[in-house]
Amino acid sequence: MTVDFNDYFWGEKNNGFDVLYHNMKYGLVASKEMTDFFRERSNIEESNSKMMTKLANKAGSGCIHGTFAPVWAVLKGSAERLSSLHLQMVQKITELVKDITKYAEELHKKHKAVKEEEAGTLEAVQAMQASTHAVQKAKELYTSRMQEIEKLKKDNCSPKDLEKAETKLRKQHDDYRNLVEKHNPIKMEFERRMTSTCKRFQDIEEAHLKQMREFLTTYIELLQTNHDMVGQVHTEFKRQFVEMTVDKLLEQFVLNKYTGLEKPG
Amino acid sequence: MTVDFNDYFWGEKNNGFDVLYHNMKYGLVASKEMTDFFRERSNIEESNSKMMTKLANKAGSGCIHGTFAPVWAVLKGSAERLSSLHLQMVQKITELVKDITKYAEELHKKHKAVKEEEAGTLEAVQAMQASTHAVQKAKELYTSRMQEIEKLKKDNCSPKDLEKAETKLRKQHDDYRNLVEKHNPIKMEFERRMTSTCKRFQDIEEAHLKQMREFLTTYIELLQTNHDMVGQVHTEFKRQFVEMTVDKLLEQFVLNKYTGLEKPG
Repeated sequence: MTVDFNDYFWGEKNNGFDVLYHNMKYGLVASKEMTDFFRERSNIEESNSKMMTKLANKAGSGCIHGTFAPVWAVLKGSAERLSSLHLQMVQKITELVKDITKYAEELHKKHKAVKEEEAGTLEAVQAMQASTHAVQKAKELYTSRMQEIEKLKKDNCSPKDLEKAETKLRKQHDDYRNLVEKHNPIKMEFERRMTSTCKRFQDIEEAHLKQMREFLTTYIELLQTNHDMVGQVHTEFKRQFVEMTVDKLLEQFVLNKYTGLEKPG
Repeated sequence: MTVDFNDYFWGEKNNGFDVLYHNMKYGLVASKEMTDFFRERSNIEESNSKMMTKLANKAGSGCIHGTFAPVWAVLKGSAERLSSLHLQMVQKITELVKDITKYAEELHKKHKAVKEEEAGTLEAVQAMQASTHAVQKAKELYTSRMQEIEKLKKDNCSPKDLEKAETKLRKQHDDYRNLVEKHNPIKMEFERRMTSTCKRFQDIEEAHLKQMREFLTTYIELLQTNHDMVGQVHTEFKRQFVEMTVDKLLEQFVLNKYTGLEKPG
């Protein structure tokens, strides 16, 4: 199903324009919220990068004596690599935030232009709403005049009173007819303008959502790439660790700390 | 190559015991440093969990109007799942830290026992060092007495002086021989004790490294499992996002916000 705004924003109150106009403005809100969201996401990465550097330093200050010393070097290297991956992520998200901020600024300008250019539709909507209201009121008044006459007839009122009421009814009928005649071109103008405005708002919305989805697609790619690289750090860490068997650690210790190979003569 | 401590911790200064004893103590230091390292690692996860909850709340407070609203729900869900994965990691690492802390306490007791039980070897080492030193000194003195006599002969000294020097030489020779005789059993005792102590320290070290490697293996498994689950959250997020096409978002918007299907009559 492909949606067509032109099918959905009519209705008795003629406030489809209002809904579509506000929706367009919410698009700007969403783009600003998206920059906030990614800024927060970038803060998380920055904090992670700092904490990983701290962790690397902790591993680096691990006891350099004893058999376990080489393991600290591996833990340090791994934490350092994670720290730098988080920092990379900060940089990438920051670029993304810049792009979205730029987009939001352009969107804001675009919305201002749309507001001006759609002023005619807004007037047509207001005219339509006012005219619809007036026709409705006139119709109601005409109906109540009719009921008045029927009541007078039923109550056998004087011919003078009846004539007075019939004059009022005729006047109301003329008013009603005049309003209906005026209403028709207003309605046509409204329909004409709304049809093109619906299309315009749909075009704007489609372009906006397409752009927002592109930002998110970039974000998802960043997440995925970063996640893969973190996985590689873990895999490399595991590989190095697996190689550090007990025998290898003892061997390294002995090479560094042996005191002499010959027993006392 | 399988290392045998018994091949490496001899040498002139007889301080192999000292090196091995200190290395054992460094094992306790390493186990404490490991708890510190993992505590710090757990702090990182905890901080991440909190920041992800904050991020989820930010996504949750995203504008509920407009076409983009459904995307915030997906971003929120994803951040919440990541937050809970980090919290899981906190719990798992905390368990690991408990295990290592317990191990470190037991290791401390074990080291105390080893210190007491190896007191005999320490005495044998000190006796060996003292005896080696004394033999060395006596040998040097004997050599200098010999040089003295040769000098006297060269200088044509009196027979009386020569006789006096030769008496001294004989006395020094006796001292030297006595020390060498005493040294032999000391050396044998030292060698006997050091042979069994080397084996003992090697057993202790092997068991310690095996245990430390097991802790790290557990940690690597935690990292791996957590990394895989984070990957699943990303994949699920991507899947949900791919389904949210521009058409789907417009469709959902229209269903929620349409004002009427019929144009004014």
